[in-house]
Amino acid sequence: MRDDVAKPIPVTDTYDMTVGIVGLGLIGGSLARRLVRRGTSVIAWNHRDHPYSQAEADGIRCVPTLTELAEAKPSVIVLCNPLKAMPAILTELKPILDPAATTLTDVGSVKGMVRDQVEAAGLGECYVGAHPMAGNELSGWQAADPALYDDALWAITVRDDTDYARFHTVLRLIVDGVGNRVIVLNDIVHDQAAALISHMPHVVATALINQLTDDPNRNIAAALAAGSWRDMTRVALTDPDRTRAMVDEDAVNVESLLRSMAARLTAVADALHNGDGDEMARFFADGQPFRDYKMAQRAGIVRYEERDVTFDPSRWQADLLASARRGEHIIGFAGDHAVRVQVRSAV
Amino acid sequence: MRDDVAKPIPVTDTYDMTVGIVGLGLIGGSLARRLVRRGTSVIAWNHRDHPYSQAEADGIRCVPTLTELAEAKPSVIVLCNPLKAMPAILTELKPILDPAATTLTDVGSVKGMVRDQVEAAGLGECYVGAHPMAGNELSGWQAADPALYDDALWAITVRDDTDYARFHTVLRLIVDGVGNRVIVLNDIVHDQAAALISHMPHVVATALINQLTDDPNRNIAAALAAGSWRDMTRVALTDPDRTRAMVDEDAVNVESLLRSMAARLTAVADALHNGDGDEMARFFADGQPFRDYKMAQRAGIVRYEERDVTFDPSRWQADLLASARRGEHIIGFAGDHAVRVQVRSAV
Repeated sequence: MRDDVAKPIPVTDTYDMTVGIVGLGLIGGSLARRLVRRGTSVIAWNHRDHPYSQAEADGIRCVPTLTELAEAKPSVIVLCNPLKAMPAILTELKPILDPAATTLTDVGSVKGMVRDQVEAAGLGECYVGAHPMAGNELSGWQAADPALYDDALWAITVRDDTDYARFHTVLRLIVDGVGNRVIVLNDIVHDQAAALISHMPHVVATALINQLTDDPNRNIAAALAAGSWRDMTRVALTDPDRTRAMVDEDAVNVESLLRSMAARLTAVADALHNGDGDEMARFFADGQPFRDYKMAQRAGIVRYEERDVTFDPSRWQADLLASARRGEHIIGFAGDHAVRVQVRSAV
Repeated sequence: MRDDVAKPIPVTDTYDMTVGIVGLGLIGGSLARRLVRRGTSVIAWNHRDHPYSQAEADGIRCVPTLTELAEAKPSVIVLCNPLKAMPAILTELKPILDPAATTLTDVGSVKGMVRDQVEAAGLGECYVGAHPMAGNELSGWQAADPALYDDALWAITVRDDTDYARFHTVLRLIVDGVGNRVIVLNDIVHDQAAALISHMPHVVATALINQLTDDPNRNIAAALAAGSWRDMTRVALTDPDRTRAMVDEDAVNVESLLRSMAARLTAVADALHNGDGDEMARFFADGQPFRDYKMAQRAGIVRYEERDVTFDPSRWQADLLASARRGEHIIGFAGDHAVRVQVRSAV
């Protein structure tokens, strides 16, 4: 039996864990407040102690040092610190974290880079990646709100050598502790999907405002602009340095997607040039499954079908990735080698 | 002196005209109600008479036939009918419209095609194009609201042989009658700008949803999608047949812009591939004037500078187009050969 084969865990397991939170900003603070409200013990450390009095009043145990956090041996430590602080925090955690007691996870929006940093710090064996689809335009403890995670979906990112028991712990934390849904991915699929729905579109939006800025009739075009232009360029108005950093971190995926988009736009230009009605019809029909998916969401015609998905304990990673590809979201366990999933609708 | 040289018209001219409105839908109905409310006599015809009792109660004189509308010899007839009804209405108007009494204009969103239809009907000499930047997601008389035109900008489209007196009449109608701002364009500049800020972006949004639909991880990407994806693909969810028709009507402009966008995306892909930081920096800096323009708008830091712009009566079209390129919006006349303009901010 391989080490990474799923160990059976009875579904009657009582949920009982202490969670350590590093960083009480918008994401970490909201998570800590929500966990405490739902009955989980939370111990937290923040690089400055200004949120501590309010956090303690909310039932969060705040400690003055990372060492005290690690010595409390929480079942999971969730790294909610800024990405730029990650290497320093990992270096500090390495000698004080007890791998037998504690699993390490995070909430970062790029998974490959965080895993590389965790590996570089020598903490790879303890690590399971995570990324909650939650957030708003605010930041800091003052904006922290347990409702930020209402109905949220998390990605958990695993590798072929990820320990099943650690994955199980993080999944329990999210579905039982936070009360959220989960899809299980690997770093590559996560970061490619993030490039598709966020990083590449940011480049496209920037190219649109460049197209206008470079046009001698730019003031006329800007004066005629309406809702479609406003919607499509809004993300190009955010800090271009931050966008550039995001694109650079995911460069290989973004490059590939930009070449694909350029080919799609050139194909439409060719079809318009040649009066190729069939090609135009194909282009406008191609995305119909996504239109149908969104229309069903908007109309509230969403299937909340639930079912159990069993997985092979020797290849649980691949089986759960296949489940995510089918549009299934994990909402709990359903036996030793099965999860309960919800399908809201699928593209 | 050429026929098309501007004839001096004293600024003390009293505003006194009767306006004919063809089509009492959202755009025409709102325009008719606003004109009446601001003191202009309005006579209207609609292909069906269901709005007539309410319109008459609002002070709009409704007539049962296009012939009665033309025989009333309004100073201007504004065609607010659907684009698809345009050829039939123009054919019907041709034998009954008195060119000496009446100038013809419209509110269509594509100007070259409408002008071609007007020319084909033999009404070119009476015509000045117009396009108000007004509208919402509603339609029909029931949605008609004078406030639809609050603070609206219109494009007036002219040719080198457009009669100045007719242009003057349409400009007076918009600035004095409707109380709106105007930029003066030719059909080519108008339709190219519309392609830039609307038609081409619709194709880009459609290419984005195709990119997702064609991805084996489409359900994962859709599950991870957040605000940036939602904003950039919203217009791709509208009726693809209507989008395709819009693109086909403006095919030459859209083709050229799509090739330019493809080149921009390929340049970024190359820069990412080659680690060309200078090119990446240039790409993200290029659109900064547009970011600054939008940020000034959002922050309310908008210059409402007003000034007079004189034009050469032998080339008023070119001089007023140059004014539009500088970001100036006409708000009235300022002498025989001058207009009062407002600059809200410029890219």
